[in-house]
Amino acid sequence: MNAFGRRLRIQLFGESHGPGVGAVLDGVPPGLPIEVARIQADLDARRPGTSALVSQRKEEDRVRILSGTFGGHATGAPLALWIENQDADSKPYEATRHLPRPGHADWTSHAWSRGFADPRGGGHASGRLTAPLVAAGAVAQRILDAHGIAVGAHLHEVAGVGGPPHAHDAATMAARAARSPLRTAHAESEAEFTRTIEEARKSQDSVGGVIEFAADGLPVGLGDPLFDSVESLLAHLLFAIPAVKGVDFGAGFAATHMRGSQHNDPFDVRDGRVVQRTNNAGGILGGRTTGTTLRGRVAVKPTSTLPGRVQETVDLETMAATPLRETGRHDPCIAIRAVPAVQAAVRLVLADLVLQGYQDGILDVPDWRKA
Amino acid sequence: MNAFGRRLRIQLFGESHGPGVGAVLDGVPPGLPIEVARIQADLDARRPGTSALVSQRKEEDRVRILSGTFGGHATGAPLALWIENQDADSKPYEATRHLPRPGHADWTSHAWSRGFADPRGGGHASGRLTAPLVAAGAVAQRILDAHGIAVGAHLHEVAGVGGPPHAHDAATMAARAARSPLRTAHAESEAEFTRTIEEARKSQDSVGGVIEFAADGLPVGLGDPLFDSVESLLAHLLFAIPAVKGVDFGAGFAATHMRGSQHNDPFDVRDGRVVQRTNNAGGILGGRTTGTTLRGRVAVKPTSTLPGRVQETVDLETMAATPLRETGRHDPCIAIRAVPAVQAAVRLVLADLVLQGYQDGILDVPDWRKA
Amino acid sequence: MNAFGRRLRIQLFGESHGPGVGAVLDGVPPGLPIEVARIQADLDARRPGTSALVSQRKEEDRVRILSGTFGGHATGAPLALWIENQDADSKPYEATRHLPRPGHADWTSHAWSRGFADPRGGGHASGRLTAPLVAAGAVAQRILDAHGIAVGAHLHEVAGVGGPPHAHDAATMAARAARSPLRTAHAESEAEFTRTIEEARKSQDSVGGVIEFAADGLPVGLGDPLFDSVESLLAHLLFAIPAVKGVDFGAGFAATHMRGSQHNDPFDVRDGRVVQRTNNAGGILGGRTTGTTLRGRVAVKPTSTLPGRVQETVDLETMAATPLRETGRHDPCIAIRAVPAVQAAVRLVLADLVLQGYQDGILDVPDWRKA
Amino acid sequence: MNAFGRRLRIQLFGESHGPGVGAVLDGVPPGLPIEVARIQADLDARRPGTSALVSQRKEEDRVRILSGTFGGHATGAPLALWIENQDADSKPYEATRHLPRPGHADWTSHAWSRGFADPRGGGHASGRLTAPLVAAGAVAQRILDAHGIAVGAHLHEVAGVGGPPHAHDAATMAARAARSPLRTAHAESEAEFTRTIEEARKSQDSVGGVIEFAADGLPVGLGDPLFDSVESLLAHLLFAIPAVKGVDFGAGFAATHMRGSQHNDPFDVRDGRVVQRTNNAGGILGGRTTGTTLRGRVAVKPTSTLPGRVQETVDLETMAATPLRETGRHDPCIAIRAVPAVQAAVRLVLADLVLQGYQDGILDVPDWRKA
Repeated sequence: MNAFGRRLRIQLFGESHGPGVGAVLDGVPPGLPIEVARIQADLDARRPGTSALVSQRKEEDRVRILSGTFGGHATGAPLALWIENQDADSKPYEATRHLPRPGHADWTSHAWSRGFADPRGGGHASGRLTAPLVAAGAVAQRILDAHGIAVGAHLHEVAGVGGPPHAHDAATMAARAARSPLRTAHAESEAEFTRTIEEARKSQDSVGGVIEFAADGLPVGLGDPLFDSVESLLAHLLFAIPAVKGVDFGAGFAATHMRGSQHNDPFDVRDGRVVQRTNNAGGILGGRTTGTTLRGRVAVKPTSTLPGRVQETVDLETMAATPLRETGRHDPCIAIRAVPAVQAAVRLVLADLVLQGYQDGILDVPDWRKA
Repeated sequence: MNAFGRRLRIQLFGESHGPGVGAVLDGVPPGLPIEVARIQADLDARRPGTSALVSQRKEEDRVRILSGTFGGHATGAPLALWIENQDADSKPYEATRHLPRPGHADWTSHAWSRGFADPRGGGHASGRLTAPLVAAGAVAQRILDAHGIAVGAHLHEVAGVGGPPHAHDAATMAARAARSPLRTAHAESEAEFTRTIEEARKSQDSVGGVIEFAADGLPVGLGDPLFDSVESLLAHLLFAIPAVKGVDFGAGFAATHMRGSQHNDPFDVRDGRVVQRTNNAGGILGGRTTGTTLRGRVAVKPTSTLPGRVQETVDLETMAATPLRETGRHDPCIAIRAVPAVQAAVRLVLADLVLQGYQDGILDVPDWRKA
Repeated sequence: MNAFGRRLRIQLFGESHGPGVGAVLDGVPPGLPIEVARIQADLDARRPGTSALVSQRKEEDRVRILSGTFGGHATGAPLALWIENQDADSKPYEATRHLPRPGHADWTSHAWSRGFADPRGGGHASGRLTAPLVAAGAVAQRILDAHGIAVGAHLHEVAGVGGPPHAHDAATMAARAARSPLRTAHAESEAEFTRTIEEARKSQDSVGGVIEFAADGLPVGLGDPLFDSVESLLAHLLFAIPAVKGVDFGAGFAATHMRGSQHNDPFDVRDGRVVQRTNNAGGILGGRTTGTTLRGRVAVKPTSTLPGRVQETVDLETMAATPLRETGRHDPCIAIRAVPAVQAAVRLVLADLVLQGYQDGILDVPDWRKA
Repeated sequence: MNAFGRRLRIQLFGESHGPGVGAVLDGVPPGLPIEVARIQADLDARRPGTSALVSQRKEEDRVRILSGTFGGHATGAPLALWIENQDADSKPYEATRHLPRPGHADWTSHAWSRGFADPRGGGHASGRLTAPLVAAGAVAQRILDAHGIAVGAHLHEVAGVGGPPHAHDAATMAARAARSPLRTAHAESEAEFTRTIEEARKSQDSVGGVIEFAADGLPVGLGDPLFDSVESLLAHLLFAIPAVKGVDFGAGFAATHMRGSQHNDPFDVRDGRVVQRTNNAGGILGGRTTGTTLRGRVAVKPTSTLPGRVQETVDLETMAATPLRETGRHDPCIAIRAVPAVQAAVRLVLADLVLQGYQDGILDVPDWRKA
């Protein structure tokens, strides 16, 4: 199944090479302003074909709202978003239909479905499903806007090299990533990232990367301990993004090298409110937000498709080992295009938690007319 | 809320210093053998007070089955497990009731609940809730047993130092960890781990660690792409364990340093079946199991409680900065006692997926009489 | 929110006067044959404009499959169904936008949404949402087909008068209802039903009705006691159909007039299997199917819209009592067009339970190639 | 599975003849006053052994709170309730272990579980599970109290005879039912109800009944159209109560005899607010509350157990038709003791919807200190 969220629930549908991809977002507060242009702007940031460093598939990714709005506002009914596929080129997949691509979902989809999965471009397991995720994230951000919550994500490392960690607040991160063709807020790293990716592409190879995300403006107390911890909810959605293989929060894996006396964030008082002097916890304690910046990292593996390069696979019809040379259009560093998806995932989880905040009396329901 | 699982659903309840802790496990297949001794054995592995390296709280952690079994088998009705608290010492918490401990849930629980949270020992957010998690995991393992699925977890690194990665299969990992007071399968690292932890304890400090987990014997095709990916489900439950701040799968964060040509696991044929020659994916492709060993890592932060050491906090009544010196009994490396919780989390997710496997026709429902 | 089902999950979206109505059906088994013509045939049975006794709104109700199929089979990915609105006439609603229609959702939708609901034709609360429900029901029936499970529904009573109860098995009920413009299996009642409805229509009024449903071919043991009882699940979905105000099973409300000695269905043995000699329980004991025919009734209120007749309402802008005369196109006995929706609801619940039956080992997963 | 509720979620566990029965209630707002005495009072109203008209099983039904409270208030953590079985007499069931009782869950539980179900007194499918339901309902009522929402239920008809419908507001209904050994608010019917039940008991038989329920003080707009309609949610939980075979709302089945012009409730203005002059809709339009009294009926079948009377069943070991004479202690009109369960079910659904009301801005989160 492919739905997520308790109060703001997203149901994805669609395939890479079918009629299109879409999402139903249920639980949107009635009155929330819904501007197609804002959703489109976020989709444009994720769109392929925008630079030499990303896939040359030409998709306009025009979003159409099928339901759930009236007069520019959400009605509170399920909001359906639909993006038609335009440049789906299924030809490369015909010859290789029985040849699962290494690193891709082909083999497991085939096995699970007993051969009934859509074999073209990964079918429903394609990274193309992040398009409706991003569109839904734009709607979620409208909820966050009413509370001054900013969410950013950017490309922090490429092939193990990157800028300083935790260098940007969420708004700066988001703004810089939006401007950067590499979706990085480390302007100083752009040239090196470009060089590394270009070099990989030329050698018919690909590179991985690390995405940082941050959120500012959160109240204290969103989330729950244990199964509904903010970490659990965020990680659940972040690992849903194809190619993500690791997630951590705050100091994360580096925390395992620290002593408790270094890692514990001391409490202090500022302007009559409890604050933390450091933020090794990444803005989450006991599963709930601390009001400090929420921070985390996402590990994105190198793109599995390596156009031109021969890889080893098995013909599922003949069960013979077979070389495979892919010719489709692909991204030499898929982490670039995963940035908007990471941002969208964080937005969706936080917007869900904001709705819980209304229920719990942590936040007041805004007058959406003024939002 | 604190329930998780779609087909095998666990609802946790209880507090560190209340009458006890428990779990209701719903969706247990009727006929599954339920032996109290096996559940108890797993609880014993997690129990405090067993060595100088862990908390000296003396809890017998005797599990009582309140419902859901008859004649030694599950009936299919909700199975309730109950563990009474015996050595809850609330006195240290009385004087410090208004002083949130750095690194703990106290502050966010207080804020969320407007002061109504149970302040003693973290209340419901306590690591003590991993006791019923471990008990439920023992039941889940009985489902996995019927399919020859083994799940292991062990302490892989302490304070950044450890054994070679991916060195053990799941059964070996589980067996060695069960024997080791440090819950590590790296016998060669035990002495150093002990030294590091002892030294931290003596300096009123604590250290973090990395836990590895593995599962063998899985069929191809458990899980779903995107929101119900095996990574998403596992990460959700793993991040529910207190002190966990990072999770990755297969090569994980290290994958971001690799090229696609190194990272992609080539397919091959062995005994007429598709296999993968390497396992950088950690046994998951497109969100579904590949049949290869499922592998991942969990980052556990250094224990937040530092007995004897002065930490800085805020008195929530007076709103004045205040030093805090804790005197409770605690673990200098909580990662040791998190090992059984990690194992339990993996078991619960995999058992849920096995039930999905029955629904999907990937696995046959066993005759539990013979299981 | 508007999603239902644990294993086969339907998410509805759309509005009466927006671009269209749709459903995402998640959990469809990969391999299930999906024929657009069969879905369309069911939609045609529900379609308005087919006789003088139903609404004259002209909707072709052409279903389009947006995702989830490949080569005529379900892929196992979410299956999205879309039906464009063609003859939505919003004009009658413009003048009366602030006048909630008695018996309709207008007033409560307005209050809940603080005026942001789509006021045209009930918006998302419209009976038009039963179109995608019926389409999804056709897919669910394909699952039931593989097990020889037939589901029928028909118009049993109009305005308190009808044929004998429990007179038809499910297949006969379905076949006769499909042929009858009144969707009744009581051929002998058609003339009287027609007369009653015609008379109501001429006097600018409407009548209610009772729908019977039945399902044959069920195995013993689908469902669960208490919260997931077959009665609970069916009633949940049946009461989701607009205008439904009562549901009972087997003898139902009449059981309250019976003695236990009359009502209890005696067990007997036939062909080596346990059977029941009577069926007052309606095929459900302890929340689970008995293998006997599942039987129940649905009370449908008289249509709320009474074209031409003056009704009393309140202008929500001026807060003054105001007469309202509706002029839209409507059904004098909405129970007729609710018949396919009732059938679809039963199909969806039973198909979900069949998937549970696979998980529980009650039923074997079919080879869908042969289904 | 046996859990229900989206925001206030109840998980039941336990068996009729096991150690006890319990519930975990998750989502209770932190700060809600929790008084054991109030929960106990509600349990006492449901308890067997209180008059000659109900079962003579002697259960004190003392509730114990295992978790989720501190200092007399809910902490917001899962609240576990536990009621030990004291007078479970399993002897009558030993001899008849293989003889499913007509009208009971025995046969379907046996079939579903392949013989692993607890055969004693219905196991988990027993009406005894309504004890924790009632206890949870008492907690839910504390939420409703803060908003002046009253919920009543009472025995309206016995064996087809009863008082006038809709004669009592919710508070009167609840108060009178609490005082009446028959749990009826129709004081004038008590003598006849008693006579009818006594007569049935003497002839080794039982009778059915109809329970009415009502809720006052609701705001406009709780619930959702379609799948989360108030009718759907209430019916789901009401049909979970053993022996319930029918549910309707407002005019309900009688609405099918009415014309639209009679049935539609005209809107009017009173004190500047929209009201309805009649209440045929039972306080629900378009799935949402209208602010008018919520009203419905529940059909309860005659008790299946008929002590002393020979009934026909099948020996599941020998598969031979076999007479069965039960000797356990039972209620000649189980509808009496179902009254508190109906009240509890309505309370739980409404409390869940009140929490949604906080999220939707329909209701303000109270200061529980003053509640």
